[in-house]
Amino acid sequence: MRNLKLTLAYDGADLCGYELQPGKRTVRGEIEKALFLVLKKKVSIVSSSRTDAGVHALQNVINFKTSQKIPVDRISPALNSLLPEDIRVLKAEEKGESFNSRFEAKSKEYEYLIYNGEILPPSLRAFVWQVKPKLNVAAMQKAAKQLVGQNDFSSFCAARSDDKDFVRTIYSFSIRHSAFGIWDGQKIKIIRLKVKGGGFLYKMVRNIAGTLVEVGLGRFTPENVKTILAAQNRRQAGKTAPAHGLCLLRVNY
Amino acid sequence: MRNLKLTLAYDGADLCGYELQPGKRTVRGEIEKALFLVLKKKVSIVSSSRTDAGVHALQNVINFKTSQKIPVDRISPALNSLLPEDIRVLKAEEKGESFNSRFEAKSKEYEYLIYNGEILPPSLRAFVWQVKPKLNVAAMQKAAKQLVGQNDFSSFCAARSDDKDFVRTIYSFSIRHSAFGIWDGQKIKIIRLKVKGGGFLYKMVRNIAGTLVEVGLGRFTPENVKTILAAQNRRQAGKTAPAHGLCLLRVNY
Repeated sequence: MRNLKLTLAYDGADLCGYELQPGKRTVRGEIEKALFLVLKKKVSIVSSSRTDAGVHALQNVINFKTSQKIPVDRISPALNSLLPEDIRVLKAEEKGESFNSRFEAKSKEYEYLIYNGEILPPSLRAFVWQVKPKLNVAAMQKAAKQLVGQNDFSSFCAARSDDKDFVRTIYSFSIRHSAFGIWDGQKIKIIRLKVKGGGFLYKMVRNIAGTLVEVGLGRFTPENVKTILAAQNRRQAGKTAPAHGLCLLRVNY
Repeated sequence: MRNLKLTLAYDGADLCGYELQPGKRTVRGEIEKALFLVLKKKVSIVSSSRTDAGVHALQNVINFKTSQKIPVDRISPALNSLLPEDIRVLKAEEKGESFNSRFEAKSKEYEYLIYNGEILPPSLRAFVWQVKPKLNVAAMQKAAKQLVGQNDFSSFCAARSDDKDFVRTIYSFSIRHSAFGIWDGQKIKIIRLKVKGGGFLYKMVRNIAGTLVEVGLGRFTPENVKTILAAQNRRQAGKTAPAHGLCLLRVNY
């Protein structure tokens, strides 16, 4: 059996997340439909990240086994001609039999975008979380540092998670203010939370983003975040930041 | 009567253009609804640019007269709290009685974005026109130069236009290749057509963009564009480029 690895990009705005849901447009549902037309057989897909509804992916990775003989360089064009425009296959690769996109992921990188201002640029509304009151970015940076390292992240794990082990490692966490624009003369200042970790609990990045925004608003101090982490209690942390601000940047193997 | 000037931004993807259309979501329709709630009176709106369905605006300008006494700095927040997220009022200003956003516009700037590659980044699909075969940007630049100056642009004016005078002036036309991204590590190379003119005929920018892409594909030479312009005949030029690649950058007074 061949083992094929696909790298996907998607705009999560009109998708109900990665995982299959009856009657709903999902990443996996659309990929399965297209794969069935290309391979003429149902395959079982393994995914590295089951992103939530609204969450975007610059690179998410899946794999599946097939005995079909389609040349590897024909797979992306064939799938992209069948997929809706909000999902693209960036790359298809042949891997060894043991490759597993979920269990072999060494690290993942996410970015969370915040627009800190009164008037949200319409073209960005699907990609950023708008927070109107002025955020103290320096305090947020200080708070983010408290989370780097190996910790029990129970305080940032959503209740309906089926995780049992809550220890994860955050390798790096940067928060920076940067400007960009889609069109000439458009200078949009964005607060970018970028986090790299060995793995993440259910809604962990969004719970951290929500908590850091509360630090930026002065409701928590950076020191409070240390206490929240130590409490291992979800009720201590801040609210879950909305899904549409989050993007899975890449999965490293 | 007060004369109020509003600067609007919108994402055209889900809008049926600027002008009113029964039963459809339009910029003017949404603005009129919100204005009626704020002013408690129907007003007559003058607009500088009636953009087509799918076209975006970084800054479009409208004005209207009212005897309502609402403070000028309350207008944008009031309207934005009522408008859908794809339309924003960036600024409200008090102007002299004679100001007319349509007739006093001195120049307008448009940008047309082209993604020249095989796999269209999903997050950009509402903002760029995807052209897959490699474009010769140098030839497009050469062709664009032929259009600068005062010319009869009949060859680039859509048939159902009610214009009678087809002479317009293009002040500048630049085409450049540049890279940007919404998320960290995303480097999207875009071909940007930026044009500034005293005024534009119906679908003129899109007809020019479509013709320049045919130059980029080698179907026309840059010299052909001079002949097409001189022919004053719409059938000589290339196809109309799709609306969603176009953005009205600003209107200058």
